[in-house]
Amino acid sequence: MSIMEEQTQDTALEELRALLGKRLSTSSSVCEQHGRGESYYPSQPPDAVAFAESTEEVARIVEIGARHRLPVIPFGTGTSLEGQVAALKGGVCIDLSAMNQVLEVNAEDLDCRVQAGVTRKQLNEYLRGTGLFFPIDPGADASLGGMAATRASGTNAVRYGTMRENVLGLTVVMADGRIVRTGGRARKSAAGYDLTRLFVGSEGTLGVITEVQLRLNGIPEAISAAVCPFADLQGAVNTVMTTIQSGIPIARIELLDEVQMDAVNRYSKFDYPVQPTLFFEFHGTEAGVREQVEMVGEIAGEFGGGDFRWAREQEDRNKLWQARHDSYYAALALRPGSKGWATDVCVPISRLADCILATKADIESSGLLAPIVGHAGDGNFHVCFIIDPDDTEEMARTEALNERMVMRALDMGGTCTGEHGIGIGKMKYLKAEHGEGVGAMRQLKIALDPDNIMNPGKIVEV
Amino acid sequence: MSIMEEQTQDTALEELRALLGKRLSTSSSVCEQHGRGESYYPSQPPDAVAFAESTEEVARIVEIGARHRLPVIPFGTGTSLEGQVAALKGGVCIDLSAMNQVLEVNAEDLDCRVQAGVTRKQLNEYLRGTGLFFPIDPGADASLGGMAATRASGTNAVRYGTMRENVLGLTVVMADGRIVRTGGRARKSAAGYDLTRLFVGSEGTLGVITEVQLRLNGIPEAISAAVCPFADLQGAVNTVMTTIQSGIPIARIELLDEVQMDAVNRYSKFDYPVQPTLFFEFHGTEAGVREQVEMVGEIAGEFGGGDFRWAREQEDRNKLWQARHDSYYAALALRPGSKGWATDVCVPISRLADCILATKADIESSGLLAPIVGHAGDGNFHVCFIIDPDDTEEMARTEALNERMVMRALDMGGTCTGEHGIGIGKMKYLKAEHGEGVGAMRQLKIALDPDNIMNPGKIVEV
Repeated sequence: MSIMEEQTQDTALEELRALLGKRLSTSSSVCEQHGRGESYYPSQPPDAVAFAESTEEVARIVEIGARHRLPVIPFGTGTSLEGQVAALKGGVCIDLSAMNQVLEVNAEDLDCRVQAGVTRKQLNEYLRGTGLFFPIDPGADASLGGMAATRASGTNAVRYGTMRENVLGLTVVMADGRIVRTGGRARKSAAGYDLTRLFVGSEGTLGVITEVQLRLNGIPEAISAAVCPFADLQGAVNTVMTTIQSGIPIARIELLDEVQMDAVNRYSKFDYPVQPTLFFEFHGTEAGVREQVEMVGEIAGEFGGGDFRWAREQEDRNKLWQARHDSYYAALALRPGSKGWATDVCVPISRLADCILATKADIESSGLLAPIVGHAGDGNFHVCFIIDPDDTEEMARTEALNERMVMRALDMGGTCTGEHGIGIGKMKYLKAEHGEGVGAMRQLKIALDPDNIMNPGKIVEV
Repeated sequence: MSIMEEQTQDTALEELRALLGKRLSTSSSVCEQHGRGESYYPSQPPDAVAFAESTEEVARIVEIGARHRLPVIPFGTGTSLEGQVAALKGGVCIDLSAMNQVLEVNAEDLDCRVQAGVTRKQLNEYLRGTGLFFPIDPGADASLGGMAATRASGTNAVRYGTMRENVLGLTVVMADGRIVRTGGRARKSAAGYDLTRLFVGSEGTLGVITEVQLRLNGIPEAISAAVCPFADLQGAVNTVMTTIQSGIPIARIELLDEVQMDAVNRYSKFDYPVQPTLFFEFHGTEAGVREQVEMVGEIAGEFGGGDFRWAREQEDRNKLWQARHDSYYAALALRPGSKGWATDVCVPISRLADCILATKADIESSGLLAPIVGHAGDGNFHVCFIIDPDDTEEMARTEALNERMVMRALDMGGTCTGEHGIGIGKMKYLKAEHGEGVGAMRQLKIALDPDNIMNPGKIVEV
C-alpha cells in the first residue's frame, strides 16, 4: 500500500469512527473473525468491522467507503463456504447481525419483511403460533440477508424453492450509498427489470442487502418424516430420480452416503445402519401424505430400500433434521483438527446417478475422506472434503477431484454450484459454465459499482 | 431525420438486404402490421421488417443495427398490450415467427428448449403423447420468446408460476451482436448473477431472445374444471381469497364479472348466468382432486356461490378455457368497431376485494364499458376498456380511471402490472412504483445497450 493509499484509508476509518463510535472495531481478533466463513480458506481480515444498526447507517458507511475507494464487505453470520467474506483488498466489513428485527408479518398474504441480520431459525421462532413457516434451511442458522446474497437453498427446496423463488423484494444500499427498494408484495409483477433476482445471488458485489421481503408458507396439516437405508448408493439415487420424475410433491428427499451416516451416528448419537440412506419428509393433508408415503414406499422397495424408520412427532422430526443439518460438523468430527472443504454441484435429475456414482468412485480411488450428502431431489449434492490445508499434496488431490466433479457436472448440463455460490472458490468454473455470459455479468458489475468497492474480487474480476 | 441520418439508414438497410434478400421487407403494409400489438395504440411502423431464421442471423442483423445506430425491435406474434413493439424511432423489426422449431425435449428432466417463435399452443401440440405440458397461457397464442420477454403468465400461474419461474435459460443476442446463453438445465444454481431473470421481462430492451429453455410439468392424473356463479362480486372475490389463504393447491381460479360473462356467453355461445363468476380447475391425484373440490365447494357455499357446473371431459374443459382466453375478443365484440385497452394490476391477496370493488365502483360511475376479468388467485386482475380511441373525451375518462386503479394498487402494496408489462403505456407508473429503482434499471440499460438501439423508448427512458 502506498503512503497516499494509507492516508486515504486512515481518513476513511476516522470518518467511520466519527459515525459509529465504539461500533467500529479495528481489533485484530474481531477483524480476523470477520475475514472467514466456515470453509478451510484462511482468514483475510478487513481493516475494520462496522456494526451497523440501520439501513440509513449502512448507506452512510457505503457512502464513506465510496468517497475513499475503500472496499465494503457485508457480513451476516460468517457461514458462507466459498470465501465470500474474505477481505481480499482490505476495507470495511459491515456486520449486520445487530439488524435483527422482524419488521412485519402479513399472515393473510403469507409474507414478511425482516432486517438482513435475522436468522432463519429466529424467523421461524418468531412465526411460532401463526401457523406459518419459512422453509429455506441451509445447514447453518444463516442470516436471511446472507441467504439472499448467496441464493441459498437447503432441504426443503425441492418443494418450496430456493431464495430465488422466495424473496419478494429487497432493500439494497447501492455502491454510491443510494437506498433502493426492489420488488414488492404482489405475487407477480411484470414491472420492469427484475432487480430483486439480480441482487439475489450477487454475494455483496452489487450492493448491501439490508432488508428482505419473504414469502411464507402455511404449516401443512400433516407432516411425516422417515429414514430409509439402501443396499447401495445406486438404489438410493434411483429412488430419488423416480420419485421426482413421478411428480410426487415430496417436501424433502435427502441423500447421505455410508461415510456420512457413520459421521451422523457418532456426532448426533443415532444408531442408523451405516449404509447409503435417504431422509424423507412428506407434507400435505392427512390423506395426501398417506398417498405420497405409499407411492414413495413402493418406489424405494423396488430399488432395494429397507424399512422406513418413522419420526412422526415434531420433537423427533426436529432431532432428525438437526442431525441432517449438522452433517458438516459431524463430518469434521471424523478427523479432529481437520478443516472442511464443502463443494457442491447440481445436475439435471436424469444424470444424478451417473454424476454421484462417478464422483463416489473418484473419492474412493483418491484415498480422501469425503462424505457425500445432498439435496438429491433437486439434482444437487455436496462432497465435503475433510482435509489438512497445510498438507499441500492432499490439497492438490482435493483440488483435482473437485475440478473433475465440477467439469463432469457441467458436461451433464449442470451447474458448478447449486447453492454455495461462487465467492473466490469457483470463479474459474463460472467462466467454464457461462462463457460469454461472464462478460455480461462483468458489464453489470461495472455499471452498478464502477469503482469496484463492493466485495471486490468475488464472482467476476473487473 | 437529417440527410446524414437518412444516408446511414439507407446503408444499413442495404446491408440488411444483402444479408436477407427477400426476407427483408419494407412494404408499408408489412411494416404497419409490425408496429402494433393487440391494444388500441396506433401502429408505429419500423423502417423494415427482417424475417430471421437463426440465432446467428439475428446476431448479424443486430450487429448491422449496432454499427449504424439503427433501432432493433423483436417481434413474436404481435400480441403485446402496452405498445411493446411500436417502432418509436423507426429501425428494423426482427420477426422471429419463422424460428419455430422445438429443439429438444428432455422428458426425464421435465424441460425443453425451443426457438423464440414457437407458440405456447404449438409447444403443447408437440408435447402431445409425452405426458407433459407447458402451463403458462396468456390469452393469445403468443410466442414463447415474447412471453419470456414480457414475463407473461396466465390462468395457471397460481399453481405453476409465471415465465419468471418457468424459464430455465435463454439464448440472447446482445446489443453488440454477441450471443450469450444464460442459465442452464439444473433446477437450481448459485453460479453468478441471474442473467436469465434479468432478460425475462426486459421487453427486448436489453437483447433479443432467440431460444428459451423451459420447465415442463407432468399432466396430472386427475383434472376437473367447474364454473360457479355468485350473487355478488364480493362473494366471488372472498371465495378466491379464502381458497388461497387456506393453501389449497388450486390450478386455476379465474374471476369474470357479470359484464364479461355476458360477453363470453354471446361470443362463445354459452348460457351461463350473467353474474360474477369463478372458473376453477383442480389438478392432482383422484383423491387429491376430490379433497380440493370439497374444500373449495364449502368455501364458495359460504360466500353465496351457486351450483358448480362441471366440465370433466377434456373437450369440455378445452371449450371452457378457450372461452376464458377469448374474453378480450368477446369484450371487443360487445361494441363493434371499438378498440381494447386492457390494463392490469396485481395486489397482495388480502387487498383483492378492496381493490376490485373500488375499481368496479369507479367503472360504474364512469359510464365506460369495461369488463373485469382476472387471475384472481394471484391477486391479479384486468380491466378491459372498450373504447373509441378517436373520442378524446372518452379517452381522457379512461386514462383517469386507469390511473386511479394503478395508484390504488400501488397504495395497497401492489404492482402497476402483474403480467402485461411496461411497454410505453406504464412507464410513468414504473417510476411511481419503484422510485430510485428505476435509476438502477437505467444503469443496467446503459451498461448493456450503450447506444440505446434495443427497442428504445420502452420501460426506461435513457
